[in-house]
Amino acid sequence: MHNQHVKDWKKLQTKKQRKKTNTYLLDGWHLVEEAINAGNQIVALIATEEQLALHDDIVTREFPIYEVTNEIMATITDTVSPQGIAAEVELPGDRFTKPETSHGAWLFLDRVQDPGNIGTMIRTADAAGFAGVVASQKTADLFSPKIVRAMQGSQFHLHLRQGDLVDWITLFKTEGHPVYGTQLNPQALNFREVTPVEDFALIMGNEGHGMDATTLNETTANLYIPMNGQAESLNVAISAGILMFQLNQKIK
Amino acid sequence: MHNQHVKDWKKLQTKKQRKKTNTYLLDGWHLVEEAINAGNQIVALIATEEQLALHDDIVTREFPIYEVTNEIMATITDTVSPQGIAAEVELPGDRFTKPETSHGAWLFLDRVQDPGNIGTMIRTADAAGFAGVVASQKTADLFSPKIVRAMQGSQFHLHLRQGDLVDWITLFKTEGHPVYGTQLNPQALNFREVTPVEDFALIMGNEGHGMDATTLNETTANLYIPMNGQAESLNVAISAGILMFQLNQKIK
Repeated sequence: MHNQHVKDWKKLQTKKQRKKTNTYLLDGWHLVEEAINAGNQIVALIATEEQLALHDDIVTREFPIYEVTNEIMATITDTVSPQGIAAEVELPGDRFTKPETSHGAWLFLDRVQDPGNIGTMIRTADAAGFAGVVASQKTADLFSPKIVRAMQGSQFHLHLRQGDLVDWITLFKTEGHPVYGTQLNPQALNFREVTPVEDFALIMGNEGHGMDATTLNETTANLYIPMNGQAESLNVAISAGILMFQLNQKIK
Repeated sequence: MHNQHVKDWKKLQTKKQRKKTNTYLLDGWHLVEEAINAGNQIVALIATEEQLALHDDIVTREFPIYEVTNEIMATITDTVSPQGIAAEVELPGDRFTKPETSHGAWLFLDRVQDPGNIGTMIRTADAAGFAGVVASQKTADLFSPKIVRAMQGSQFHLHLRQGDLVDWITLFKTEGHPVYGTQLNPQALNFREVTPVEDFALIMGNEGHGMDATTLNETTANLYIPMNGQAESLNVAISAGILMFQLNQKIK
């Protein structure tokens, strides 16, 4: 085991290193298996002796396998309880691709910051049958360890993109599909009054500051969730969940 | 400043001490103000010199005020960034009261474990206009610092109870109101097919193990949220949010 490998895997916790190598780290057999099944390129499979024995069928695969100790496993992952098996996997090749179609339901994240919220929203979008999630350039990097952990494999089920939201909004509108904002203003619509359609986008804003003024200006309509007068607000991931399951009713 | 005070405030992070003193700790001016406005008994107001100066109107109040340093503030609260003002407040007197009415929408927590999930569900129930939340005896204590932080003052807007869920379920059913479980089984109903009513209860189960068999056996119906086949599941707080806003449509 070259020490340099361990250092490099550990560095995948940083955006800089992920950009440099065009890879990210998956922690745990379940995610590693999804990546293999999805045909993602596995740059390195890293596991303890015990985990390799449990999954001995993977040893025949055509990717490099590294046996490491529990201590090394703990240093390369940022989890409290690493699962003893991880993989360095190539990042999706299309993650910065500009929009080419506005088919299906899409979630746009406008400068959302908290990794747990972002990961949970992606996981919820997946469950709600969304086609993809697009993060604005000022949203946290979608392949950070915390987001990867929270999205629980949803990157293998829907499109994850990062780019200028205005490009995406313009395409949806040009193709005749609604783009819903979530900024409370006097013209905002009760979300229950929106007729669900097949193709649309929903934008969730920053936890503290809401949506960017430029993005907001481009929406078709703004939605609000009616609330008890005493409640201050809903957590952004909870709001997103309520709206996504209301707006996308394809899955019956 | 008696050192014993500081030790006792710090101990309020434990369930044992809260039970002994029948009090809990609120961190931050916003929550302290809500407690004062709600008429809760303030056993001690604890603040730094700076915070006391900012809120000098409270000095005239009829409760003991203790000026402490930032360091003491940091030891008694378990937050990364304490807000410099806290209060030891009496716990709600009715929190173990047995059910006496089944009016309104109620959320029952059946052995839910994660404090963040519990606090978020209480906050969401508040926003959705629920009358109260009941935690089963095996659910985490509702006044732990993490839950108090996550529920963001909702304890001042709705009833929080802890007790035997079977007592509550029996009352709702006796009074003719539905009690919805959330355990997937062959008889489960698509949540969109339920007609919203004024008075009902919704039960959310444990993150890993779902609902208790005894509780499950007593439900009127079990609901499911239709999901994309590839998604594994929803976070329990997200599911609760979707269901609560669908079932309780009083707030328009």
